[in-house]
This record gives sequence, structure tokens and C-alpha cells, in this order.
Amino acid sequence: MTGKLAVVLLSGGLDSTTVAAIARAQGWRLLALTIDYNQRHRIELEHAARVARALDVERHITLPLDLTGFGGSALTADIAVPKTGVAPGIPVTYVPARNTIFLSVALGWAEAAGARDLFIGVNALDFSGYPDCRPEFIAAFEAMANAATKAGVEGERFKVHTPLMALDKAGIIRAAHDAGAPIDLTWSCYDPLPSGRPCGACDSCRLRAKGFAEAGVVDPAQSPSP
Amino acid sequence: MTGKLAVVLLSGGLDSTTVAAIARAQGWRLLALTIDYNQRHRIELEHAARVARALDVERHITLPLDLTGFGGSALTADIAVPKTGVAPGIPVTYVPARNTIFLSVALGWAEAAGARDLFIGVNALDFSGYPDCRPEFIAAFEAMANAATKAGVEGERFKVHTPLMALDKAGIIRAAHDAGAPIDLTWSCYDPLPSGRPCGACDSCRLRAKGFAEAGVVDPAQSPSP
Repeated sequence: MTGKLAVVLLSGGLDSTTVAAIARAQGWRLLALTIDYNQRHRIELEHAARVARALDVERHITLPLDLTGFGGSALTADIAVPKTGVAPGIPVTYVPARNTIFLSVALGWAEAAGARDLFIGVNALDFSGYPDCRPEFIAAFEAMANAATKAGVEGERFKVHTPLMALDKAGIIRAAHDAGAPIDLTWSCYDPLPSGRPCGACDSCRLRAKGFAEAGVVDPAQSPSP
Repeated sequence: MTGKLAVVLLSGGLDSTTVAAIARAQGWRLLALTIDYNQRHRIELEHAARVARALDVERHITLPLDLTGFGGSALTADIAVPKTGVAPGIPVTYVPARNTIFLSVALGWAEAAGARDLFIGVNALDFSGYPDCRPEFIAAFEAMANAATKAGVEGERFKVHTPLMALDKAGIIRAAHDAGAPIDLTWSCYDPLPSGRPCGACDSCRLRAKGFAEAGVVDPAQSPSP
């Protein structure tokens, strides 16, 4: 396989799967990193593995990094996931410093593997209000990465690619279609039902449904199994 | 216990133990974070636990975060630890993005716990040439942290305290003495002998010995057991 090597953060959700597919369509060889932070919706880990296989990544690592000992989020502690609709402000599903931690681990893998490019599926439009999804954060992370690493100090430059940053959810779904992303394999729900189906009411389910509706596309992951 | 809460990165080595003791002497209540990255010198984890008890920290977490899958360092892969003396440049014991990853995890715990202060035992004088021990890195990390977090976005400021930054190893040993640091409990060697004793020849052993010699102090961790 040809092309430059990049590390992509792959949660198994719609956004990160779309980013990985975009990177593959651009010719990148991918190292896919999934973090098992003992999240409430651990089912997404299985989806990440399926997506990694479908996209023919060079290597997929699912790294255990248990953040539940710190608490502070509805995704890692015994705090209820909101179900009444997307509200203004930063919600309780925010996991303190999550993208910072994930990008830092991705940076470590990238530097060790000789990759200088990272891909992450953040977007600042139809998003959940998380501070670590904004362009200001990404720019600050790049500056920090170039001061932190041997490669950066030696004059190479790390770049964090955020191809979804300026898209709304409908735009992401159109981009996923264009890149041939396996969105049927993705998982978005924060708080799966006991049956294993998405709850349909958390912010992540709502944003996903809104995106498909606005894009005029049926969500293939929501269709009944054949 | 009174005083403000801070997170200290505690490896079990001389520098981080000294920093933790300085913070305690300044009146901080400490959350001590040790990362089990499956390092070659995992014996330091036991030393970190002993130091945490001796310093009466509020809570000590040893977090597994296995970096050996990435490789790229003599501390995490099958690469020999240099034994011929401290050489110019960045050595093979550099672990890609290690301090970035550790500080990011510390940031997550700090934000969740309501702490806004981090302590880390980096120093840029008698150091191992690691880029992520320099003041430029610390400043870039602080800027990134304030863009990354809910607390930062809401106007609070995270601060990374580096009380050893401008000290040489002899100065660190004097600071350790002044702060009552339990340096007899610390571990520095990167490549322990089969007997469990420090090798005496790796950069970390050499820098430690040089510091004690220049400070005119006998290393209590090197004394024969009574």
C-alpha cells in the first residue's frame, strides 16, 4: 500500500468513521486508535473494530485507559444521561479533557510510528458543546505537540486534520456518502437500552437523527436487520 | 485538611517525589497520579505508592496505560538502555509524547476533581534532553489546557507548576532536603539489575549520582539496608 501514514482516532461513531473514510479516500494509510475508557456505551468499541476492518487500516489498537476513577461525566460516572433534548452550554456528558487525552495518546503513537498527521472527527457546528471540539483547541494542541516532541523540536510539524470541523450533521452524512464510509457499522448512542438498541433520546441519538433527516437519507444503522 | 487541591504526577523517582514534597510543604492537598505504562523499570510503581503514603496524599491512583504497543523507546520496547554516559541530543529513552500524555490525564483528573493546579517534576538543566521537559512545552500545554476544558472556557485558568525547572540535580537534592522529601523511598534507574538493584550506569543513575556528589550528600536509597 502506498500513501503517507496517519493516526486516526476511531470511536466507532458516525463522525470518526466518516473522517477515517475521508482520509482513506485521500490516500492515507491509517493507524486507527480506539480508547476503551470504560465508557457507558462500550458497545461502540465493537463497532470501531468493524469499521477498522471495513476500511482496511494498517493497524488498529484498542487501548484500555480507564477514566471512570476520575468521575465528573455522565459517560464515566453514575450520572444520568440527559434525554430531554440538546440544551445550550456544555452538557454533563462532557468527559474532562477527553479529546486532549486521546489526541495525546495518538500523538505518541504517531511519533513512534513516523507519522506526522492525526485525524479527529470533531466539528464545531452541530456539536454537543464540548470545548475540545473547537478550532481554538485544535490549534493550541498542534502548537503544544510541536513543542512536546522530538520530531517537533527537530523541525517537523504535526498536523491535526479535522475535515468535519465546518460541517453540520447533514453535511457530515453527505461527506460520509461521498467517501464511501461504512455508516451502517457505526454506533452513536450514549446510553444503550437493555435490549442493546440505541435509546433514541440522548443528545448523540438526537443529533444523528437530525442529520439524517436534514440530509434526506435513511440511517442504515437504524434499519431493522434483514 | 485545609489548602487547595492539586494533582501531582508521581513516578516514584527523585524529581517527582521532591515536587510532591514541595507542594505539601506549601500547603497543597494532593491527588497523586502514577501511570503504569508497562515501563521497563516498573519497580518505580511500588516506590510511588510508598512515597504517596509517606506524603499523606488525599488520594493516589496508579493508572494502567500501556504504551508498549507503540514502541519507539528504550523504556517501552526491546531497545537497549544506553550505559556509556549522558550524550548530547535526545536519547533513545525518550518515550514519544510521554509528558504530554501524562499531563493530559492529570488535567482530566484535575478538572473532574475541581483542581486547577498540576505539579510535574520536569527540569531543563541537568536533564535527559527530553523536549517535553522544557519551559516552552509547559507554556504550550497550559495554553492548550485552557482551550480544551470546560473550566478553561468558563474563565478559570489551569497552571502547571514546575518548581524544579531551573534547578540542577544538586539543587534538586537540596530542595528535597528542605522540603523533607522521602528520598530514601525513591527509585531512578531505567534498567534494574536482575538482583533488583539500580544498574548504576544508565543516564538516570548517572544524573542521580552526580547530583548527590555535587550536593555533598549520601544517597539514602543507595545505602545498604540495615
